[in-house]
Amino acid sequence: MKPSIPKGTRDFSSAEMTRRNYIFDTVKKHFHLYGFEQIETPAMENLTTLTGKYGEEGDQLLFKILNSRIHESKEKDKLLSEFQLSLDSARNTTTLTERALRYDLTVPFARYVVMHQHEITFPFKRFQMQTVWRADKPQKGRYREFYQCDADIIGSNSLINEIELVKLIDDVYSELNVPVTIKLNNRKILAGIAEIIGAQDKIIEITIAIDKIDKIGLENVKKELKENNLSDIAISQLEPLLTFTGNNNQSITFLKTYLKDSTIGLKGIEEIEQITNSINQSGLSAKSKFEIDLTLARGLNYYTGAIFEVKANAGTFTPSITGGGRYDDLTGIFGLPNMSGVGISFGIDRIYDVMEELNLFPAEKLNTQHTQLLLMHMGEAEQQHGLQMLSALRHAGIRVELYPDVTKKMNKQFDYATKKDIPYLIVIGSNEMTEQKYTLKTKDEKFEKLSVQEIIAKIKG
Amino acid sequence: MKPSIPKGTRDFSSAEMTRRNYIFDTVKKHFHLYGFEQIETPAMENLTTLTGKYGEEGDQLLFKILNSRIHESKEKDKLLSEFQLSLDSARNTTTLTERALRYDLTVPFARYVVMHQHEITFPFKRFQMQTVWRADKPQKGRYREFYQCDADIIGSNSLINEIELVKLIDDVYSELNVPVTIKLNNRKILAGIAEIIGAQDKIIEITIAIDKIDKIGLENVKKELKENNLSDIAISQLEPLLTFTGNNNQSITFLKTYLKDSTIGLKGIEEIEQITNSINQSGLSAKSKFEIDLTLARGLNYYTGAIFEVKANAGTFTPSITGGGRYDDLTGIFGLPNMSGVGISFGIDRIYDVMEELNLFPAEKLNTQHTQLLLMHMGEAEQQHGLQMLSALRHAGIRVELYPDVTKKMNKQFDYATKKDIPYLIVIGSNEMTEQKYTLKTKDEKFEKLSVQEIIAKIKG
Repeated sequence: MKPSIPKGTRDFSSAEMTRRNYIFDTVKKHFHLYGFEQIETPAMENLTTLTGKYGEEGDQLLFKILNSRIHESKEKDKLLSEFQLSLDSARNTTTLTERALRYDLTVPFARYVVMHQHEITFPFKRFQMQTVWRADKPQKGRYREFYQCDADIIGSNSLINEIELVKLIDDVYSELNVPVTIKLNNRKILAGIAEIIGAQDKIIEITIAIDKIDKIGLENVKKELKENNLSDIAISQLEPLLTFTGNNNQSITFLKTYLKDSTIGLKGIEEIEQITNSINQSGLSAKSKFEIDLTLARGLNYYTGAIFEVKANAGTFTPSITGGGRYDDLTGIFGLPNMSGVGISFGIDRIYDVMEELNLFPAEKLNTQHTQLLLMHMGEAEQQHGLQMLSALRHAGIRVELYPDVTKKMNKQFDYATKKDIPYLIVIGSNEMTEQKYTLKTKDEKFEKLSVQEIIAKIKG
Repeated sequence: MKPSIPKGTRDFSSAEMTRRNYIFDTVKKHFHLYGFEQIETPAMENLTTLTGKYGEEGDQLLFKILNSRIHESKEKDKLLSEFQLSLDSARNTTTLTERALRYDLTVPFARYVVMHQHEITFPFKRFQMQTVWRADKPQKGRYREFYQCDADIIGSNSLINEIELVKLIDDVYSELNVPVTIKLNNRKILAGIAEIIGAQDKIIEITIAIDKIDKIGLENVKKELKENNLSDIAISQLEPLLTFTGNNNQSITFLKTYLKDSTIGLKGIEEIEQITNSINQSGLSAKSKFEIDLTLARGLNYYTGAIFEVKANAGTFTPSITGGGRYDDLTGIFGLPNMSGVGISFGIDRIYDVMEELNLFPAEKLNTQHTQLLLMHMGEAEQQHGLQMLSALRHAGIRVELYPDVTKKMNKQFDYATKKDIPYLIVIGSNEMTEQKYTLKTKDEKFEKLSVQEIIAKIKG
């Protein structure tokens, strides 16, 4: 039997983990600097919590958990007929499956806020770094199991939050040294557009179609809109917007004319203008760009205000690496209305792929968790001697290993150190045992006759 | 609709996360000091990887993932008849479910070692800190989703590894300030016992029964053994062992007589004696005890040598908080024989419960991730002024928030700081805007007219 892992999932070696942890730690550090507090929610949620929140397509991508011990059920006939139904309709009944793996961190967060509303201090700034699962077709940059790192503020309408999130994105990517374009749009503008072209009932279809323009191009977007029964007039009214190019000020000027008859549209413009002005005033770091993108739509239904998306602007692989937006009533579905929130999500797995391609992992920051010293030995007595040295070294903070097997083959022990990239070596022989002085070796240097305390001082300093 | 979460799962608030992270970070620090390297494996594994490894009871506790898009299957009749079979037999067919959530980290680790054997440097010292899932009946200290923190060495037979693991356990609990008893036994001794009483074919049943002695008592263990067709003679031969009490030396002496006719038993004694001698020689920290426990069996089938278990020896709640052992052929089932390994697993969730009861979380180490400073403000212009102060503070490493809503109600802003336990406050009014000097307040003190740089210096200490 040759072992394998499920499609779209991955093992991470220690070399990969070191790099992943570098990204996690950097994001986490900035979440803390901005006052976000960490929470965690379970991997599995009740199916009723998740279904109907991500659109029909999203529902199809949920990984559902088979109920346990169905063979002990007393209602097997019912189970069987319900299973038959679920074979026909893509809907699974709760007798078969009551739980599913979380699809994102936003819906579980909304559920959390409602359940714990009486313990929470609002505005509530929380972050969450956990795995999510989607039964999607795997491809480059798209996995079935991946991490999301989310920061949200809920219980505040202020645009200060949107501004803070843009600054946070900038700080994270600036420290990671990834050059990015931070894109901004507003769902109210999209609503205004639907209003202007007389297709308010088609706002979801319009949003989904616009969202694809980067991938499928103008003609295919138009085709898709036509298939969704948008009139030719409406489509031609939409076209100036789809083809517009210009800087942030020009975008705002264009929109003010285009949406002059839509109250909600004008509100959206006011919001992006305020955010843009504040960002211009404080400035971003040298490698970050900030851009109003009128074709940015983002698929998820729950957004109602600002929407964000971030792409790396270097390299050949430039997927969305951060996204988010404002949702005015996400907790309403769980019984807590009027609780506006805004948040962003860092896609660690894609950030990793981008940094890998651009060669951005700083070697000097990656080996802080690596073994520093290997104690090698000439035989059993020498190994026992080494064993007694370990506590003093570790209590001084030295990451140290004793070669565990007794072997006269020094090559084997050297080889272990080389492959694990351990910088300091000591070989314990009978002289070392007697004198309690050791020769500390690195690739290039040799320090003779050091005591354990001198070894500690040498490695630490 | 009132939201809830699945039975046996939990949400963690930021106060809980801070404490959990303290445990995680402590364990991780010592894993690094001992030279273990972190890996991660996917939450879901192929069902074939997991089944048959944890005994029949374990198989029943797997959370299985329903295959996606079964409604699109072209073989619905087959699916239906297979579902009917799974209703009868407790076995689910791969048409219905191909994957399950991991039950522990040891089997996925064995699978990992076999899959990546050509990239790994042996002896391989890895650690892994991830969630596992078991469809167990929830109770105090037993959850359906919980973390395991595992350290294993694979590819080395040396008892040095067992000794190192005992020292590691001691170092972790010593730093966490949890008083523990580290219990040791050896599966070879259990095999020897089965041999001596003439019941080699019943070794699993004997192990399972012995394992329960703490919970159900001697009489019930004897009853269970009888039910498993162990003869009265065999049971009476077992009794001296079940009732034996004595210190470590007495245990070894007792066993040397009791098992004098069993080769494998004597080998087991030799191993625990060597480990015990080494631990006695180097000593453990003041609050840790080390104890040979002849009734320690541990349920899992794959152990073949040393077995460990750790319990807190204070408080009313004393579940097993760490466990592990040596397995001689775990990778054999995946096609890589003769790869002996030994490992331990820290149960973070139970350690948390124990530390909570004993009040062992050190307050001064928990607030290092907390917001330090809140900028309050008298109105919109003052808030904008505060917004421009944030970057300088954060780039200096100060964890700072700006109250996001514009409100004249100072109480609301104060209240936010109090509830979030933010130690430093600044109120920005028109004077502060003009002078660019601010009054920094704590609960007890007030520092007048500080510049941003002076504020940074004051907070950093």
